[in-house]
Amino acid sequence: MLHNELKARRLGIDTYRERVVFMRYDCPVCRAEGFRSMGRVRVSLGERSVIATLDVVQGNLLGGDEIGFSEAAWNALGAHDGDCVRIFHPDTLDSFSAVRNKIYGGRFSQSDLHNIVRDLTAGRYSSIEIAAFITACAGDRMSTEETIALTQAMVDSGTRLAWPQHPVVDKHCVGGLPGNRTTPILVPIVAACGLTIPKTSSRAITSPAGTADTMEVLAPVDLTLEHMRRVVEREGGCVVWGGSMALSPADDLLIQVERPLDFDSTGQLTASILSKKLSAGSSHLLIDMPVGPTAKVRDDKAAAALRARLLAVGEAVGLKLRVVCSDGLQPVGRGIGPALEALDVLAVLRCDAAAPQDLRERALLLAGHLLELGGKAADGEGLGLAARTLDSGAAWDKFQAICTAQGGLREPGRAAHRLPVTAARSGVVTRIDNRRLARVAKLAGAPMAPAAGVELLARLGQRVAADEPVYLIHAEAPGELDYAANYAGSRPDIIHVEDIP
Amino acid sequence: MLHNELKARRLGIDTYRERVVFMRYDCPVCRAEGFRSMGRVRVSLGERSVIATLDVVQGNLLGGDEIGFSEAAWNALGAHDGDCVRIFHPDTLDSFSAVRNKIYGGRFSQSDLHNIVRDLTAGRYSSIEIAAFITACAGDRMSTEETIALTQAMVDSGTRLAWPQHPVVDKHCVGGLPGNRTTPILVPIVAACGLTIPKTSSRAITSPAGTADTMEVLAPVDLTLEHMRRVVEREGGCVVWGGSMALSPADDLLIQVERPLDFDSTGQLTASILSKKLSAGSSHLLIDMPVGPTAKVRDDKAAAALRARLLAVGEAVGLKLRVVCSDGLQPVGRGIGPALEALDVLAVLRCDAAAPQDLRERALLLAGHLLELGGKAADGEGLGLAARTLDSGAAWDKFQAICTAQGGLREPGRAAHRLPVTAARSGVVTRIDNRRLARVAKLAGAPMAPAAGVELLARLGQRVAADEPVYLIHAEAPGELDYAANYAGSRPDIIHVEDIP
Repeated sequence: MLHNELKARRLGIDTYRERVVFMRYDCPVCRAEGFRSMGRVRVSLGERSVIATLDVVQGNLLGGDEIGFSEAAWNALGAHDGDCVRIFHPDTLDSFSAVRNKIYGGRFSQSDLHNIVRDLTAGRYSSIEIAAFITACAGDRMSTEETIALTQAMVDSGTRLAWPQHPVVDKHCVGGLPGNRTTPILVPIVAACGLTIPKTSSRAITSPAGTADTMEVLAPVDLTLEHMRRVVEREGGCVVWGGSMALSPADDLLIQVERPLDFDSTGQLTASILSKKLSAGSSHLLIDMPVGPTAKVRDDKAAAALRARLLAVGEAVGLKLRVVCSDGLQPVGRGIGPALEALDVLAVLRCDAAAPQDLRERALLLAGHLLELGGKAADGEGLGLAARTLDSGAAWDKFQAICTAQGGLREPGRAAHRLPVTAARSGVVTRIDNRRLARVAKLAGAPMAPAAGVELLARLGQRVAADEPVYLIHAEAPGELDYAANYAGSRPDIIHVEDIP
Repeated sequence: MLHNELKARRLGIDTYRERVVFMRYDCPVCRAEGFRSMGRVRVSLGERSVIATLDVVQGNLLGGDEIGFSEAAWNALGAHDGDCVRIFHPDTLDSFSAVRNKIYGGRFSQSDLHNIVRDLTAGRYSSIEIAAFITACAGDRMSTEETIALTQAMVDSGTRLAWPQHPVVDKHCVGGLPGNRTTPILVPIVAACGLTIPKTSSRAITSPAGTADTMEVLAPVDLTLEHMRRVVEREGGCVVWGGSMALSPADDLLIQVERPLDFDSTGQLTASILSKKLSAGSSHLLIDMPVGPTAKVRDDKAAAALRARLLAVGEAVGLKLRVVCSDGLQPVGRGIGPALEALDVLAVLRCDAAAPQDLRERALLLAGHLLELGGKAADGEGLGLAARTLDSGAAWDKFQAICTAQGGLREPGRAAHRLPVTAARSGVVTRIDNRRLARVAKLAGAPMAPAAGVELLARLGQRVAADEPVYLIHAEAPGELDYAANYAGSRPDIIHVEDIP
C-alpha cells in the first residue's frame, strides 16, 4: 500500500449531512501527514473524492490500516468495504476568506458567492463553516445585489427543469405560521382550472412540518424527475419533495445547519425561495406572507422589507411575482404537524362541514390570486372561480388523481400518546404564541415523527373555562410527550387567556 | 435497567472539544425517546451530567444496550466502562434565543451574556451554536457595553486568582505579528527589577504559535495553581499556560471553534484578553498592539477603535491599562513557530551577537513601559533600566531560575524536514505578507508540531538575488512539508521583491 493509502470501512455512524472520517492516531497516514482531529482531509477512490472532517481514534475501533466513514462520507465516496482509498490534505478553502471578509463588514462579490456555493455543493464546508456563513448572511446583512448573486449561484449549483407548457405557476408560503397548509388544496384547484403547477415543496426548516412532510402522509412525494414529469403531464399538477430533484442542492446543505440553529435571514430566505422556484422552471410565482408578532415575518415593516427584496430579486432573475400578505396572528386550521395538518387538508378538500374554515378561506384566496396571475381569471374574479372549483368536488377529484399518479392516496396515521393542555384561568383567548406552539409540536417529535404535533382546540376571541383543554399534544414516543409537556407546562402563556367579563 | 438507561462505553473517538455520544438507532432509548442524529441529549451518571451531540449508529459498532462516548464527553462525565448512565432530553437552550436576537440586529443584555457564558461553560452549546455566537459577535458588532458585560461574564465563569503583592503587572500582545515573542524576554527583565508578573499565556488561536506554545519548548508551562504560586513567590514571575488554571474557561471553548474558523472580533478579542488578565489577578496591564496591513490590526483606524475599546472596558472592569502601538509591517525575529521562536528568545536573553535586534528592541521597549507602569522607573527612564538589566545578564539568570522553578530549562528541538523558498527575481524586498507567511507555518504543522514553522531569511529593504532563499520551511512530517510548500509555491508574492536598481 502507498504511504497515504488505507482500507475503507463503513462504520455506520450517521453524522447527518456532515462528512466525517475516522483514523487511528497512530496509523501511518496520520503519522506521515500530521493529520489531527477537527482537521479536514480529502479522501479519494479512483475518480471520486470527498472532503471530510477527521476524528482521530484511539483504541481498537479501527485497525492501523483502516479508515472509517460516517454514512454521509461513505455515500458521497461510493466506496465498498476493503477498498483502498488515498488520503490527502485538501486544498485551502479560499472561498471562505470571502465569508471572513463579509463578517468584517465587507460585501460578497458575484464570484465570491459563486465560489462559496460551488464549494458548499462539493461538500468542502464543515458544519461550523456553514454555520458561520449562515450567520454572516443572517438578519438583513445581505444587500439586494448580494441576494441576486446568491440566488443565481444556487440555481447554477443544480439541475434546472424546463417545461413545454407556459405559463408554469407556483406558490410559496414564507412560513412561520403553524398549520398553514394551503398548497395541497390550491394545487388541485388551479390544476382543475387548467393551469400547470409542478409544485416542488421542501421539508421543514424550522417549523414542525413542511409541505413535503405533510403531503408525504397522504401520498409518496419522493419522486424521480421522470415520474414527476408524467404526473404533471397527466394531471397538470403535483405536490412532491424537491430535495430529490437536485434543485438548488446548496440550499439543502444550508438548511441542514439552519435547522438546529433555528434561524433564517431575509437574503437567504429570498435566495432559498427563488432559487428553488427558478430551478423548478416556474415563470409565475405567488408568495403567501403571513404577518404577525409571532409569525416568521413579525410586523409590516419586516414584511415590506422582505416583499421589496423578493420583488427586486424576482425581477432581476426573471420571475413574475405577486406577494400576498396575510394575517399571521394565529395558526391556520387545527393541526400542527404532518399528519394533523393532513387531516385538515382532507376535510377542506372533501368539503366536510367540520372542516377548518380559516384554512379553506386562505386556500381559496391564494388559489384565486394564482388563477388571476396565471391568466385563468380576470383580476377580482379568481376567488369566485376557486370556490366553485372546490365546492363542485372538481378539486377533490383532481387531488385524488394527483395522489394516484404520485403512487397512491393514503390515510394519515394517529399518534399513540396524547396529552391535553388546559387553560390556566377562565376568560377570553387574546394571544397565541405561534413560535412556542410550534416549539411544543417540534419537541413532541414533528416533523420526523409524522403523527406528532399539536391539535389546537381554542381560537383567538374564544371564551374558555379554567382547566378547559386549549390544545392537545400528540406524540409517537412517551419521552417526546413528556419533553413537550414539560416545555408547555413551564410556559402557560402560550395560549394567553384574559379575564374579560 | 430503566427505560432510559444504557451501559457506558468509551469509544476512544477524539472529537476535539465537542462532546459526542453514540447510540444504536434501534436501541430502546432511541426508540422510546425519539432521539435522532445531530440532536442533543443529556447523559447523567450519579450527580454528574453532560449535554452532548448524538450520532446515531447502525450496525455492530455498539450493542443495543450500550452508549458510546467521544473522549471529550467521556472525560466530562467521568464514567467507567460498563457504568449505567441515564439519557434525557436536555432542557431547551434558552440562552441561544439571545444569540438569535443579536443576529437579527438586537443587543445582548448583561443577563443574556451571563446566561450564554454559563451555558457555554457547562458544555450546553454545540460547535455550530458556538460558531453562530462567534460570528454574531464578529467584526465590530459588539458595543462597549456588551463587551464589558461579556468580559465580566467570562471572568465570573471561572477561577479568579488573588495575589498578596501589589501591583501585579501583566502584558499582552494583540498578536497577528508572526514571531513577536517578547514575553519570555520581558518577564525576567521586570521580575529581576522587583515587579510581580505572574504571566499566564494562551496557546495559538489563529497564529502559528502562542506564547504558551513557544515557552513550552523551553520549560513546562502546564502548571497547577499551587505550583505557579510557588514559582511567583520565589522568582517574582512566571510564564505558564493559563488554560489549566480554569481562568475564563468560556474563552477556551470559544477559541476551539475560532481556530478552525480563523477569525476574531473587536468585542470578543477585548473580552478574551481582559477576562484572562482580570482572572489572573492583574492590576496593571500593558498591551502591545502591532499595526500593519497584514497584522491582525491592519491600520491606524482599526488600532484606534480597538485601543478605545480596550481602554473603555479596562476602566470599567478596574484594570490600569497602557496600550503601545508598534510597527507590524514584518515578522519579529527570524523564527515563526514554537521552537524557532524559542531559539530567537534564547539568543536575545543570552545577548548573542547574532540575536535578532528587532526582537531585542521590542522586548526592551515593552519592558521599559512595564517598569514605568509598575512604578519601578519614572516615565522615560524605563527603557534604560530594561537594557541594563538585560545586558548585565540579570535577565538571563532570572529566566533560568524561572524555568528551573517551572520544572527545568530545556533546549528546543529541530525539525527533520526543511525546504528553502527562493526569491522569484532579484531586487529589494518591499512587502512581506505576514498572514500568508503565518499560513505557511501553520500548514507546515505549527503550533501542534512544535519544531515546525518558517525561518525568515530576508527583511524589508534587503536586496536579494533571483533564486536566493528568502525563507526556510521547517516540518516534522513530509506530508506537511509538501502541503506548506505547495501553498507557498502557489503564492510567490508572500515575500514581495521589486526590481529596484
